[in-house]
Amino acid sequence: MSPRTDIELVEQANTDLYEAMERGDHAAMSEMWMDGQVSVVHPGWPVLRGRGEVLRSYALIMANTEYIQFFLTDVEIDVMGDTALVTCTENILSGGPAEEDGSVGPLIGQLVVATNVFRRTEEGWRVWSHHGSPVLADRDDEDGEAGETGDGDGPGAGSVGG
Amino acid sequence: MSPRTDIELVEQANTDLYEAMERGDHAAMSEMWMDGQVSVVHPGWPVLRGRGEVLRSYALIMANTEYIQFFLTDVEIDVMGDTALVTCTENILSGGPAEEDGSVGPLIGQLVVATNVFRRTEEGWRVWSHHGSPVLADRDDEDGEAGETGDGDGPGAGSVGG
Repeated sequence: MSPRTDIELVEQANTDLYEAMERGDHAAMSEMWMDGQVSVVHPGWPVLRGRGEVLRSYALIMANTEYIQFFLTDVEIDVMGDTALVTCTENILSGGPAEEDGSVGPLIGQLVVATNVFRRTEEGWRVWSHHGSPVLADRDDEDGEAGETGDGDGPGAGSVGG
Repeated sequence: MSPRTDIELVEQANTDLYEAMERGDHAAMSEMWMDGQVSVVHPGWPVLRGRGEVLRSYALIMANTEYIQFFLTDVEIDVMGDTALVTCTENILSGGPAEEDGSVGPLIGQLVVATNVFRRTEEGWRVWSHHGSPVLADRDDEDGEAGETGDGDGPGAGSVGG
């Protein structure tokens, strides 16, 4: 087996991060975060800084989430030296606590984009920062005609001339 | 004059980034971004990648913004090697295009949090990634009593036990 490239290792670390969340595995989540001045922004939240605050936020979310699944798309990885920057789209399906009759609560679909920063450590690539935010409007048609006027504004503008 | 520390230089670069936006100075904005696989997330937008797409998005926003001012708070800077990670709160006051009678359009206040990643280059610290997102609900009272139960969820949870 040939040694894995940085890109492959970072992609695996990014996947591990989301799988820890899916399993509600707080110990695994804790291992993913590097020591130091880490920071997290959950969608719609303010910035949380430091391992203590970051990991408490995950404990809170896990306690209030019965079911969550991430379908990652548009995963893009850029490695420079000992830092890796990952952007991806999180297509999230989640459910709250079960209903009183024991049935699963309503499932909610959410579209979130994330910028994840990893650092190379002796234990492997670890999370330095995670910033997730809601995509608040549909993108323009990505297969739009050439000759778009480009005078749009807001989220849809993302595909103008892209 | 003593040489400035990395923290000071990064803080200046972060300030320069917002001042370029305030002045609507697209050339200055363009200079702030490093060459390479840069990415940006504007509040509520999907991810945009690459200098071309990133700088077009700023041109669009500048074209649609008559007035914008950033009051930065909670600026926290962490430098590791040649990468700097900045988190801050952007208290934004902005206005759209002027009314037909020439008067200034309505001003809008917005609360956005940002994670900005900078790289050390020969020309100074340059932006690798900017991710801004709306804070969608008030934080809990930050001066809350000791003994909070900590069972809150959502944005307010940011201050639980912080």
